[in-house]
Amino acid sequence: MGSSFGKLFRIHTYGESHGPALGVIVDGCPAGLEIDETFIQSELDRRKPGQSKITTQRQEGDTFEILSGVFEGKSTGTPISILIRNQDQRSKDYSHIADKYRPSHADYTFQEKYGHRDYRGGGRSSARETAARVAAGAIAKLFLKHHGVSAQAYVSQVGALKLDKPYTELDLSKTEDNIVRCPDATVAEQMIELIDETRKNRDTIGGIVTGVIKGTPVGLGEPVFDKLHAELGKAMLSINAVKGFEYGSGFEGVKLNGSDHNDAFYKDGDKVKTRTNLSGGIQGGISNGEDIYFNVAFKPVATIMKDQESVNEAGESITVSGKGRHDPCVVPRAVPIVDAMAALVIADYLLISRSNRL
Amino acid sequence: MGSSFGKLFRIHTYGESHGPALGVIVDGCPAGLEIDETFIQSELDRRKPGQSKITTQRQEGDTFEILSGVFEGKSTGTPISILIRNQDQRSKDYSHIADKYRPSHADYTFQEKYGHRDYRGGGRSSARETAARVAAGAIAKLFLKHHGVSAQAYVSQVGALKLDKPYTELDLSKTEDNIVRCPDATVAEQMIELIDETRKNRDTIGGIVTGVIKGTPVGLGEPVFDKLHAELGKAMLSINAVKGFEYGSGFEGVKLNGSDHNDAFYKDGDKVKTRTNLSGGIQGGISNGEDIYFNVAFKPVATIMKDQESVNEAGESITVSGKGRHDPCVVPRAVPIVDAMAALVIADYLLISRSNRL
Amino acid sequence: MGSSFGKLFRIHTYGESHGPALGVIVDGCPAGLEIDETFIQSELDRRKPGQSKITTQRQEGDTFEILSGVFEGKSTGTPISILIRNQDQRSKDYSHIADKYRPSHADYTFQEKYGHRDYRGGGRSSARETAARVAAGAIAKLFLKHHGVSAQAYVSQVGALKLDKPYTELDLSKTEDNIVRCPDATVAEQMIELIDETRKNRDTIGGIVTGVIKGTPVGLGEPVFDKLHAELGKAMLSINAVKGFEYGSGFEGVKLNGSDHNDAFYKDGDKVKTRTNLSGGIQGGISNGEDIYFNVAFKPVATIMKDQESVNEAGESITVSGKGRHDPCVVPRAVPIVDAMAALVIADYLLISRSNRL
Amino acid sequence: MGSSFGKLFRIHTYGESHGPALGVIVDGCPAGLEIDETFIQSELDRRKPGQSKITTQRQEGDTFEILSGVFEGKSTGTPISILIRNQDQRSKDYSHIADKYRPSHADYTFQEKYGHRDYRGGGRSSARETAARVAAGAIAKLFLKHHGVSAQAYVSQVGALKLDKPYTELDLSKTEDNIVRCPDATVAEQMIELIDETRKNRDTIGGIVTGVIKGTPVGLGEPVFDKLHAELGKAMLSINAVKGFEYGSGFEGVKLNGSDHNDAFYKDGDKVKTRTNLSGGIQGGISNGEDIYFNVAFKPVATIMKDQESVNEAGESITVSGKGRHDPCVVPRAVPIVDAMAALVIADYLLISRSNRL
Repeated sequence: MGSSFGKLFRIHTYGESHGPALGVIVDGCPAGLEIDETFIQSELDRRKPGQSKITTQRQEGDTFEILSGVFEGKSTGTPISILIRNQDQRSKDYSHIADKYRPSHADYTFQEKYGHRDYRGGGRSSARETAARVAAGAIAKLFLKHHGVSAQAYVSQVGALKLDKPYTELDLSKTEDNIVRCPDATVAEQMIELIDETRKNRDTIGGIVTGVIKGTPVGLGEPVFDKLHAELGKAMLSINAVKGFEYGSGFEGVKLNGSDHNDAFYKDGDKVKTRTNLSGGIQGGISNGEDIYFNVAFKPVATIMKDQESVNEAGESITVSGKGRHDPCVVPRAVPIVDAMAALVIADYLLISRSNRL
Repeated sequence: MGSSFGKLFRIHTYGESHGPALGVIVDGCPAGLEIDETFIQSELDRRKPGQSKITTQRQEGDTFEILSGVFEGKSTGTPISILIRNQDQRSKDYSHIADKYRPSHADYTFQEKYGHRDYRGGGRSSARETAARVAAGAIAKLFLKHHGVSAQAYVSQVGALKLDKPYTELDLSKTEDNIVRCPDATVAEQMIELIDETRKNRDTIGGIVTGVIKGTPVGLGEPVFDKLHAELGKAMLSINAVKGFEYGSGFEGVKLNGSDHNDAFYKDGDKVKTRTNLSGGIQGGISNGEDIYFNVAFKPVATIMKDQESVNEAGESITVSGKGRHDPCVVPRAVPIVDAMAALVIADYLLISRSNRL
Repeated sequence: MGSSFGKLFRIHTYGESHGPALGVIVDGCPAGLEIDETFIQSELDRRKPGQSKITTQRQEGDTFEILSGVFEGKSTGTPISILIRNQDQRSKDYSHIADKYRPSHADYTFQEKYGHRDYRGGGRSSARETAARVAAGAIAKLFLKHHGVSAQAYVSQVGALKLDKPYTELDLSKTEDNIVRCPDATVAEQMIELIDETRKNRDTIGGIVTGVIKGTPVGLGEPVFDKLHAELGKAMLSINAVKGFEYGSGFEGVKLNGSDHNDAFYKDGDKVKTRTNLSGGIQGGISNGEDIYFNVAFKPVATIMKDQESVNEAGESITVSGKGRHDPCVVPRAVPIVDAMAALVIADYLLISRSNRL
Repeated sequence: MGSSFGKLFRIHTYGESHGPALGVIVDGCPAGLEIDETFIQSELDRRKPGQSKITTQRQEGDTFEILSGVFEGKSTGTPISILIRNQDQRSKDYSHIADKYRPSHADYTFQEKYGHRDYRGGGRSSARETAARVAAGAIAKLFLKHHGVSAQAYVSQVGALKLDKPYTELDLSKTEDNIVRCPDATVAEQMIELIDETRKNRDTIGGIVTGVIKGTPVGLGEPVFDKLHAELGKAMLSINAVKGFEYGSGFEGVKLNGSDHNDAFYKDGDKVKTRTNLSGGIQGGISNGEDIYFNVAFKPVATIMKDQESVNEAGESITVSGKGRHDPCVVPRAVPIVDAMAALVIADYLLISRSNRL
């Protein structure tokens, strides 16, 4: 259970960190969509390990193979299966923790839940599974592009270092210009320095990724439980290491009065617009045509290069020593995962909305 | 679409603010559970309008009738249908806004989505639908009680006024002792005063509800997309006026280093425990047996007693004037909704977890 | 579990034979559909007990109340909740079988499955639940009518007495002209006589209902598991007392050679048609625009007025004596259930098909 | 849509007849199950083409690779992904029918539904997809074996040639002793001869596969829409070329009186048994512990070696000539597909039933 996402534009993923392969089936992509394989690869490249000094040194080409659902370059409406083989598994790296519970990892919970687990690199709980999300997200983005919608993300905070500008004052096209994926070059430099320092200190640090979705038509989102932001929130919270989600005015908004928080409607040509956008583009769980924006909080990576107190499967007190490869800060590589998940949610709700009216 | 929640312990709700009735079907409650109707009523009473000077003056008895699924006081395993009739509808209150889009309400998005809407009191977008959630949540709580699990919530912030103690330093049994539902009597007084002032000012204000789940067994939550906190987050974000969700260390946790954030494991008798609980009781999306705690951010209620700029269905500029009854601050009445939704999520995952092993 | 049907045009039912009420939520009916309440009542009247000498003498008005989802006579796109109160419950009729397992009823299986059951009239296993299906089916039929699709059914066999004409040689508008619902008046008379004789003999008898769906557009049905006829089959097999389903050439078709069975395509104006229709309007699980037709086999009703060997909950040998009210043959009243379920399937697949293409 | 089956023991398949590969994800197999790869291969071998003179001459090794979800020989509870590469695709065989609609195939319906299709060998509509079902079914059978349940099937009819014994009078262990998979050696010979004759006549013929499930515990199946036989029926009807499904007394049962059809209960030691089993092991949609048995009707294969009238995409009248490789009768190779699907249904309902009681 739990490896499927979406209702009509639906994905099913599989794969362990150190197994033979990862992959995803995209079931529900409408027929006739041009599947640009170069684009899919470029998206996987944004997420792949070993990109820079501030990411893990594991080396994975993350090349993929489409096994079904595409014919003569176009989607056929049948399941699109994408396969990504693991290469640099180094399973022996992990034998030393086979029966140890690494603090704040999923070792203990998986063991208790299933009674049997692939301990190598965290198995299914490893963030390596997000490669499959990014591949599927690339298909969703192609679909969204066809409908004039874009899903973007960038790093807005590392540790306590915060980019103090709203997205509206940033040039998001510059996000990919630096290795930390912050569109403000000056703050980006500071973030990189902070992460590098943390890495040298054999430690890790958290951060925030901000997502922005533009071009969404009015009417996406289903009342009550499947509100657009509820599904978006679930999508983000399902990403490894995420501890919080907020959209629009978010947690800061609780301090405001209604008279300051409400977004006045006005007519702009023949379009209904709002003068402010504290709603974050969603009202009553349904998109209102304004930009959708949100923040996703990532905790510091649990793998650190320091000794830590813990227990093992036998229940004995042990020390877990830092080994293996890891990201000192997850947010730079989380950016393509956040925008991929956002694209998947919007693609799904676009299809669902086709049933709204007679 | 969108009016169902849960996979095995599953609910389906219906009903508009000013229609004849609201209700819910609970499908999947195991057979043999004693259905304590007094308890269900007491839960509905916690949520119902007209409780105090700081809540809306709409009067609803919120009495309910069980139509199916219970025989000789016990659940039969078949769908439990609960009906709550609306009483104090006062539909004429709303005729003046029949074709007007109230700022930051769902009037505009519903109209664009469906082309036809029940404008009375917001129709299906009204928070009145949460009565059905609370009734279903009461069933879930009875099921959880049987398994030694409790789901509680309280108000931890109103506007900028914050209760600066973690839940571990509070006596949650005092939550219901005051009308704002804050377990700290002193802060509660200040909150009540702030809300009352806001009300007199014909305005509204936001706040935060904190949830605490105790007694959860190890192993609840499904890897990848259906992580326990992802579903919990979706449940909370689906509640009217919610703008954000965080659990464990949350947004503050991003500032920490991994060495400070990791929760060391130790053995306490024959139980594995963690020395700290920044994980919030969930690791890799799966409960680890520690307390689960989280915050839910509510924006200020959109209905204010002031004139606001807007447009109508015809696209003309109009002024929306404040009329009708409303809550000046939603959080006191949101408490039973938050704990109801938490109970529903845990009940569902308890059943799902029965499939984990051979 | 198990009380929901459909994916986008989705229904959730509840209710026991002798509880306070039955009902259904239709979630996913597109907005803007005129909800003709007179039509819904006429459909319920076709199914209700006590219609004629060949049906059960239980008296139920089967009047209904719409609780939500309809405003100013039209669907709003939100859940439509329909309530049908039970009236003539006569629970005491059933006290004599409280702990007895009636042969070929669900008493034993419910007891073993749940450990606790509403034994009155079979509780949830009673065919009384089909009233909710018929109410929901009426909504689906209104939706289909809007799309030029009709779903009809009629009795084609009672016991060994078979109407030996294909539907194409019958005038289906005459189906409702007689109490057995067979469009051939002569055969209808014979069927009525056979059922009445069976009833006088304190026994019951089986039969076949044939369904015909006209006007379906090309392209309904999803490849592999959700083929149109697979879902249609499941819908029919879920009706009480059904033992078999076949469509198109059905079980007889197995005797043919491919050269006799294949339906040649030809062009009729600008439409692609088939010269024969052994495919039953479905090819590869997808509608091809021809009529869809199928047969549904109903076993003889298990309640008979004769003494039968059985056991009770305590495991003692007992005799079950015939009491209570029952149908001597279920097929006349099954007709509106079959066409209701057919309408629900087609309505659902119509909505699903909106996602096929870009 | 449509490539997923099951609720808790859930599968997702993909792959076209002439694409790079087929495959399946089994999501929901409980952890700790020994995954016997030799058994999986033996199941695939039962279904693979080219087995004998009465099956298609396409050559496929149908070897598989497990990509995830298994560690140290046991299931981990995470998705099990199984990959089967296509080998003998011979795509050029099909270029001559690229724009032609073969009678009673899915060419026309796929083209109209999606506007774009992989015409090679029927693409996704080819029965080649059933390899993925068989692989998944093998996992389900391993799970069932652990619970003492078996799912078997055999050929009981080819054309009009019928094996006139109930399964209770047959030795099902002899099913695999001949190439037609009929446990009665004499009738098997006649069936083989009939199929071979049909093949020589460049034609095809239909048949019936009978399924038998033994060892099912009491209580599987969910009331109302998800009755055990309804899901079983859907599973069977989803198999290529299936036109009908019946269980227990089936279509013949409609001729009986209730007094002959009812299965009397009696006590056998401490077990409740039925003297007859016209119910087919299922009462009220729930298994009663008796054997479950059913028939599945397969039409003659649509690919014949004769000229047929048809139209092409441009709407022109054409002649479709027989080419390519095909089965003259599908039932011998359908046997492992039928028992695989039966195993998947029972595995799923076993898991679901764990939620029945407190």
